[in-house]
Amino acid sequence: METIYFDNAATTRTEPEVLEAMLPYFVEEYGNPSSLHEYGLHAKKAVSEARMTIAELLGCKPNEIFFTSGGTEADNWAIKGTCLAREAGNAEEKSLGHIVTTAIEHHAVLHTCRFLEKRGYAVTYLPVDELGRISLTELANALRPDTFLISVMYANNEVGTVQPVGEIAELARQRGVAFHTDAVQAAGHFEEKLSTSGITFLSASAHKFGGPKGVGFLYVREGTKLVPILHGGAQEQQMRSGTENVPGIVGMAKALELTMKKRRERERKVAELRDYFAGRLLAEIPMSRRNGDPEECLSGNLNMSFAGVQASSLLVFLDMAGIHCSSGSACTSASSGASHVLLAMGLSDQWINGSVRMTLSEHNTKEQVDYAVEKMREFVAKLRDQNPAWKK
Amino acid sequence: METIYFDNAATTRTEPEVLEAMLPYFVEEYGNPSSLHEYGLHAKKAVSEARMTIAELLGCKPNEIFFTSGGTEADNWAIKGTCLAREAGNAEEKSLGHIVTTAIEHHAVLHTCRFLEKRGYAVTYLPVDELGRISLTELANALRPDTFLISVMYANNEVGTVQPVGEIAELARQRGVAFHTDAVQAAGHFEEKLSTSGITFLSASAHKFGGPKGVGFLYVREGTKLVPILHGGAQEQQMRSGTENVPGIVGMAKALELTMKKRRERERKVAELRDYFAGRLLAEIPMSRRNGDPEECLSGNLNMSFAGVQASSLLVFLDMAGIHCSSGSACTSASSGASHVLLAMGLSDQWINGSVRMTLSEHNTKEQVDYAVEKMREFVAKLRDQNPAWKK
Repeated sequence: METIYFDNAATTRTEPEVLEAMLPYFVEEYGNPSSLHEYGLHAKKAVSEARMTIAELLGCKPNEIFFTSGGTEADNWAIKGTCLAREAGNAEEKSLGHIVTTAIEHHAVLHTCRFLEKRGYAVTYLPVDELGRISLTELANALRPDTFLISVMYANNEVGTVQPVGEIAELARQRGVAFHTDAVQAAGHFEEKLSTSGITFLSASAHKFGGPKGVGFLYVREGTKLVPILHGGAQEQQMRSGTENVPGIVGMAKALELTMKKRRERERKVAELRDYFAGRLLAEIPMSRRNGDPEECLSGNLNMSFAGVQASSLLVFLDMAGIHCSSGSACTSASSGASHVLLAMGLSDQWINGSVRMTLSEHNTKEQVDYAVEKMREFVAKLRDQNPAWKK
Repeated sequence: METIYFDNAATTRTEPEVLEAMLPYFVEEYGNPSSLHEYGLHAKKAVSEARMTIAELLGCKPNEIFFTSGGTEADNWAIKGTCLAREAGNAEEKSLGHIVTTAIEHHAVLHTCRFLEKRGYAVTYLPVDELGRISLTELANALRPDTFLISVMYANNEVGTVQPVGEIAELARQRGVAFHTDAVQAAGHFEEKLSTSGITFLSASAHKFGGPKGVGFLYVREGTKLVPILHGGAQEQQMRSGTENVPGIVGMAKALELTMKKRRERERKVAELRDYFAGRLLAEIPMSRRNGDPEECLSGNLNMSFAGVQASSLLVFLDMAGIHCSSGSACTSASSGASHVLLAMGLSDQWINGSVRMTLSEHNTKEQVDYAVEKMREFVAKLRDQNPAWKK
């Protein structure tokens, strides 16, 4: 049985060309970039070239890219590191102050903010509308004299809704507040230059765009106050210690290069397939709905709800039919509890319980979508048939 | 020209068998372990098996092993996470309290402690003797009623001296103080079971024992109070968030398995070669000395000083002759300043300035050592000849 992978928001395949680029740095060019001999210099050069590649692709300076172990570390660092810089600042700044974020952030941001609340920081969690969009007016109104950080994700991992990052950055700039965006889902999908974006911090993770797991980066606008959260050997301009993950960093740069090179064509192709998928499901399965913003949305994201169905049961049936998708985000799929994103969007229990996320990549085909539609029709009907409440 | 790698304390080659074990988890089995479908379950199983392998090799429970991005993160987490647990504790515990460490720790511990000092913690940096050993009596005397953590490295990265970890653990247990040991250099070299060791936290890094860069682990004794330093998707028993680095984790387990399987034979062989190396250098180069404890020492470590020589110049000559070793640790080799380890051992400037570290692995041969001895004789003589102060 062919397996169909519709869970690219959870993680992507490491592209064969990416793995190929990484391979020399395991067994042959295995030097520590901090070593001054030949092996070390080769490793250092590889890391430096990867940094330049990423900076060029994102339109920023190489010294604004800091390698991390992934998106979670990047998110934690941007937020906690800004707090630590504030705490280490002058007396006036030492008051803990206020952070504005949204109710639909990834848990790497949300749980970091909860942690900071326990430590005395004030945090506002902005609501979103039914499509998962924040309101710029509400954001502006939420800012206080002691607000020092706005953290709003670039695009949501569950429903794909893209936030008005440019406008948020402009507002943050006007008000003198740092702006962090968790772009873990969005990296590779946008073309705006970071240098002119007004963004202060941007987090990304390689395994979401065809790179390996265990590596990511944080963009930090030059001149920004930030304190390290990992202390030690002073790598990464003394800002992020730890021996560099050389093969991972090389792989991440290669993956971003590949994904950006064919971005427009891929986005168009994937969105077309996704819209075809959505169209068929909406037309052929009664009492179904699409969640998220159908316009301002990541190209591959399709979040659908089927009334009268428990998503967990549907996922089991789909898995047995070789179709791999998810409910909510992968990071929390193992935990019980309803999606905080769909809750924040104000969906009723019926829609939340029956919500399934399909995230497509360029590797998915119309044949796979057609097969999935058939199976979903069959399984949704079957589950509804077994649901006494539905039959009423 | 053959290149000779004598810098295994900086990083080791990823063993070909390790890379082979990792390969399926990039392009084929690329699932996110948190995903509930087939791809996710395969990835989860791989991570779970790696955890069991490591736990079995170290004599602890699988739920006591937490995967990290490396040794630096593990060190930062053990120390800061213990502080955060204390700060989150009851009112009585909220006073910041006192940490005891040593003057010769890796910077991942030292700089973390300096950071905590700035935040109000008290830290005692224990001195060491000329061989790099701490005194148990001095450690016992340094403990205060508010001491809550002892952090003493298992073995030093520059001179290889192994600390009396068993006795420290016993003292810590008696005094009710948590004991963290940075075993980044030592993992794979010892056989004591963690379950009976009395150690509370142990840090390790895969790339120091034949595994890949960018992955490590922290052993946390069951029932220990610790707060996460990376918040998010609740991976690793909700203690360390972030999508698991599946290939890295699989590779680390394989590397530890390989290294432990042939531990005794390798240790004997490497130590014999190292002692032969030391013997020849001491006999054939006048005014040379070996640094560190020749008995309680990592098998591959040879730290030598040559009077009248600038180590940096010697390293350049050696590098040009294809011999790769280091001065101090790799992590700080790019920074100026004398080795804090040799300074703490009380060595005079002459010995500190002329100190070179050779760290051997099982891949090194007698022929390589013989060649290196010849070259070192030649280069030391040449550098002394060019040194006006020496000629006097």
